[in-house]
Amino acid sequence: MSQLFKLKTDLRVFFEDVDAYQVVHNAKFFCFFERGRLEYLRHLGFVDEGPDCLRNLEVVIAENYCSYKKPAILDDILTVCLRISFMKRSSFQFQYIIIRKNSKELIACGYTTLVCVDRKTLKPTGIKPGVKNAVEKFEGDDLGKNTGIPEIKISDIL
Amino acid sequence: MSQLFKLKTDLRVFFEDVDAYQVVHNAKFFCFFERGRLEYLRHLGFVDEGPDCLRNLEVVIAENYCSYKKPAILDDILTVCLRISFMKRSSFQFQYIIIRKNSKELIACGYTTLVCVDRKTLKPTGIKPGVKNAVEKFEGDDLGKNTGIPEIKISDIL
Amino acid sequence: MSQLFKLKTDLRVFFEDVDAYQVVHNAKFFCFFERGRLEYLRHLGFVDEGPDCLRNLEVVIAENYCSYKKPAILDDILTVCLRISFMKRSSFQFQYIIIRKNSKELIACGYTTLVCVDRKTLKPTGIKPGVKNAVEKFEGDDLGKNTGIPEIKISDIL
Amino acid sequence: MSQLFKLKTDLRVFFEDVDAYQVVHNAKFFCFFERGRLEYLRHLGFVDEGPDCLRNLEVVIAENYCSYKKPAILDDILTVCLRISFMKRSSFQFQYIIIRKNSKELIACGYTTLVCVDRKTLKPTGIKPGVKNAVEKFEGDDLGKNTGIPEIKISDIL
Repeated sequence: MSQLFKLKTDLRVFFEDVDAYQVVHNAKFFCFFERGRLEYLRHLGFVDEGPDCLRNLEVVIAENYCSYKKPAILDDILTVCLRISFMKRSSFQFQYIIIRKNSKELIACGYTTLVCVDRKTLKPTGIKPGVKNAVEKFEGDDLGKNTGIPEIKISDIL
Repeated sequence: MSQLFKLKTDLRVFFEDVDAYQVVHNAKFFCFFERGRLEYLRHLGFVDEGPDCLRNLEVVIAENYCSYKKPAILDDILTVCLRISFMKRSSFQFQYIIIRKNSKELIACGYTTLVCVDRKTLKPTGIKPGVKNAVEKFEGDDLGKNTGIPEIKISDIL
Repeated sequence: MSQLFKLKTDLRVFFEDVDAYQVVHNAKFFCFFERGRLEYLRHLGFVDEGPDCLRNLEVVIAENYCSYKKPAILDDILTVCLRISFMKRSSFQFQYIIIRKNSKELIACGYTTLVCVDRKTLKPTGIKPGVKNAVEKFEGDDLGKNTGIPEIKISDIL
Repeated sequence: MSQLFKLKTDLRVFFEDVDAYQVVHNAKFFCFFERGRLEYLRHLGFVDEGPDCLRNLEVVIAENYCSYKKPAILDDILTVCLRISFMKRSSFQFQYIIIRKNSKELIACGYTTLVCVDRKTLKPTGIKPGVKNAVEKFEGDDLGKNTGIPEIKISDIL
């Protein structure tokens, strides 16, 4: 699997996730992306324990995109592969590919653009230096490359 | 409000729609888009009554995009304005703007690209002629214009 | 329909509400109950406008019960009929019946027991006198009768 | 932890699970119960792989009950402990307690009564002998005891 996407987290498809066509509902993929983001932040040490665990998450979502490749069904184990694809002064972007774990099929890909804000005024603020440094270290030279809709080569998956 | 978006449907934000920041959750907007699509199909006469009401909906979603402009909160009445922006042989696109009804503020905009398929094989099929004709009549000359992320002029909203 | 349930509010079943069996998902009924509670509070004048609209809702849910009678499907219009069945010092109970609007069939019934609390300590507080008086006036002599799982006579529905 | 509840499965609370009060939404607990049921059936060998995995789940839910003890918050690991508390000819009941894994606090308890049905007619059918035998073997002498709202002794949890 592509080393471009440096974090991976697995999830199981539950009955509550599937729709009347017995496939994962289109909106649910954005929840799967969000779970990936939380794991990413946890991996870098920015999720606190207890009721204040949201303290480091002063962001709003600017845009969300998902391209659906194959349906996922009940009980599938999906691997969310994700990376931060760019960081500007106050905005940054997560990029995702979702793979069916056992068959290695590409299920979906997408991205989310977020903006660091002051939660009260909703005005943009700079990304905190501690977060910026940790992401730069984690993503390395790939930061700033291949942004927006992920370009995926078949060799990245199979 | 813009005549480009020829169908409008209102919805109220319920407690189940808002997240820990007390704003509508990012994934929920894709449900709001979907409710708009159902109203659009109903308006054109393609939603049957009873258990077979899904019969005319042999489509899969190819991609979903949402740009978030301002937060929506509990109890807001939102107006989903939508149109079909293009139709090809088997794919077509819905485009949306969501407005806070009482303040006329732009809350979000987005689009969904769908593909008519055979539900069993998931192979693309042509859009049914009856649906195609009804959409062409309803959308008129605007069909095929301003596709993808909606370009919105302030005069379209205020 | 029974005059025991003094408030009624309609809702439409959306695609996001139905599960893989093409019927409303079992957990969703508790959201429908919740929408009914908000309408009840609005009807009595306890829902403020704007971001502070939750200000009068300093309650936690102690228990939730639903009995499922017939499946509801996509596009159904459901009528949530509800009442406050008892009020004690700090706890009170909502009771519901859900009817399919056009066929008058009983779909579900249930109840929710809530407790007024201080949001910070989660300690019970007394029900605010203004709320208590308004509910007593609205419910009249039926308050305190037929609590818990609703006893429903067929004449209440048909 | 009580040996009365013979199956346990852990889950993490995601951002999509919490409400405007930053606690797990009341309806979501019924999804957590449902995830437990699927794990129970998988443990006993009744969840098939692939698109037909629902084949052995020809049941409808008759009633659902949850008693909320303490709030669960984002990122909590919850342990769903569950058992089948009774089996009759066509109906049976799951009973649950949900524990916060690290603190061993009781978060919620509840039950679900289900009925085996023919999916087309919705008429009750007998529980399949293979399922009945497997459950009797798994639950042992506790089957039929302590049904409905679970009676929980503090020693069952701490």
